[in-house]
Amino acid sequence: MVMKVHGSVLSPPVMRVFAALYEKDLEFEFIRVSVAARENKDEHFLALNPFGQIPAFEDGDLKLFESRAITQYIAHVYTDKGTPLVCEGKPMATVGVWLEVEAHQFDPAATKLQWELVYKSMQGKATDAAAVEENEAKLAKVLDVYEARLSQSKYLGCDCYTLADLHHLPALINLMGTPVKKLFDARPKVSAWVADIMARPASAKVFALRYQQ
Amino acid sequence: MVMKVHGSVLSPPVMRVFAALYEKDLEFEFIRVSVAARENKDEHFLALNPFGQIPAFEDGDLKLFESRAITQYIAHVYTDKGTPLVCEGKPMATVGVWLEVEAHQFDPAATKLQWELVYKSMQGKATDAAAVEENEAKLAKVLDVYEARLSQSKYLGCDCYTLADLHHLPALINLMGTPVKKLFDARPKVSAWVADIMARPASAKVFALRYQQ
Repeated sequence: MVMKVHGSVLSPPVMRVFAALYEKDLEFEFIRVSVAARENKDEHFLALNPFGQIPAFEDGDLKLFESRAITQYIAHVYTDKGTPLVCEGKPMATVGVWLEVEAHQFDPAATKLQWELVYKSMQGKATDAAAVEENEAKLAKVLDVYEARLSQSKYLGCDCYTLADLHHLPALINLMGTPVKKLFDARPKVSAWVADIMARPASAKVFALRYQQ
Repeated sequence: MVMKVHGSVLSPPVMRVFAALYEKDLEFEFIRVSVAARENKDEHFLALNPFGQIPAFEDGDLKLFESRAITQYIAHVYTDKGTPLVCEGKPMATVGVWLEVEAHQFDPAATKLQWELVYKSMQGKATDAAAVEENEAKLAKVLDVYEARLSQSKYLGCDCYTLADLHHLPALINLMGTPVKKLFDARPKVSAWVADIMARPASAKVFALRYQQ
């Protein structure tokens, strides 16, 4: 039975799951859930995710939610397919650190910037310049640490591409089309890392999906 | 060589690491870092964690930071010691979901409530009643989902105690001494789960540590 992803192609957490599936060359069925129509608060959807947030995911009888738990499942269960995305032993402990860094250091500022500069304008809402400035300052500090890290290691977790890098893809796709791009461009190692991630065939597929709505 | 934990006994992320070490019956050296004296911004500490946040952790040559990455390392590497804290195969995918739920649904509200009701009063600062009300409402919605989940499963991730439960311990220790306790008490399954977690010998050791400063 083919895996199912429930969500919207414009949602960063849903894009994170697509990226893992494309890296693994896995087939899946995409089931559109309209957040605008509040379909994510329907009883049917709440049975998949009681928090009423996209994505939700099914693999046979197994039902999962929370994008980073879904990507971990895909990476750890489909080990013989496509890109490894994880590694074994002590290097994985360091990949684990950078997985948490994405979630707790990078993502809070990056999510607020995407909301202000991408999603609010899609909805015809005005950008809050003070919120942009505050979160650009936070993101700049995180990217300073990334610049130092990427001077020691090709990717964040280790010398191969893992979930610790992949989890950033949705924010990179969104923010590279905004003035926040300058924060990445100003740091040579970060800039090369972004270019490398964006050039991956799986990343291009995630980017292309938004035009197939 | 004995493991080292750098931090403060009153910090929730440091308490999370202590809980995992006590569950595993592992010896460790505790190295006090004074955040008040900004020792976490010293060059020596920044070499352990470039974000300048406690805890930092060492196991021989391996240096880790981010509390949840440290507990994952302890659980996955010291598999033959103490409480398992993880499980294998498909159940672990579901544990993974609830690990993310703690980090992204429970923790944001719980951290703000601990700041308002525990840490600000330690520092002689006034509580922001509106922030408490807002975050109590958010936490109540999360605990409604926990109540339903704990009707199907003894613990959040599966029928055994895992990191998905353990990661909540610091917030539970802090919030059970505040009026937020009522939100847990009002939900029978949640209330039994809290009592179970708090009664664990490893949890009692974490609780006792704060009086050994």
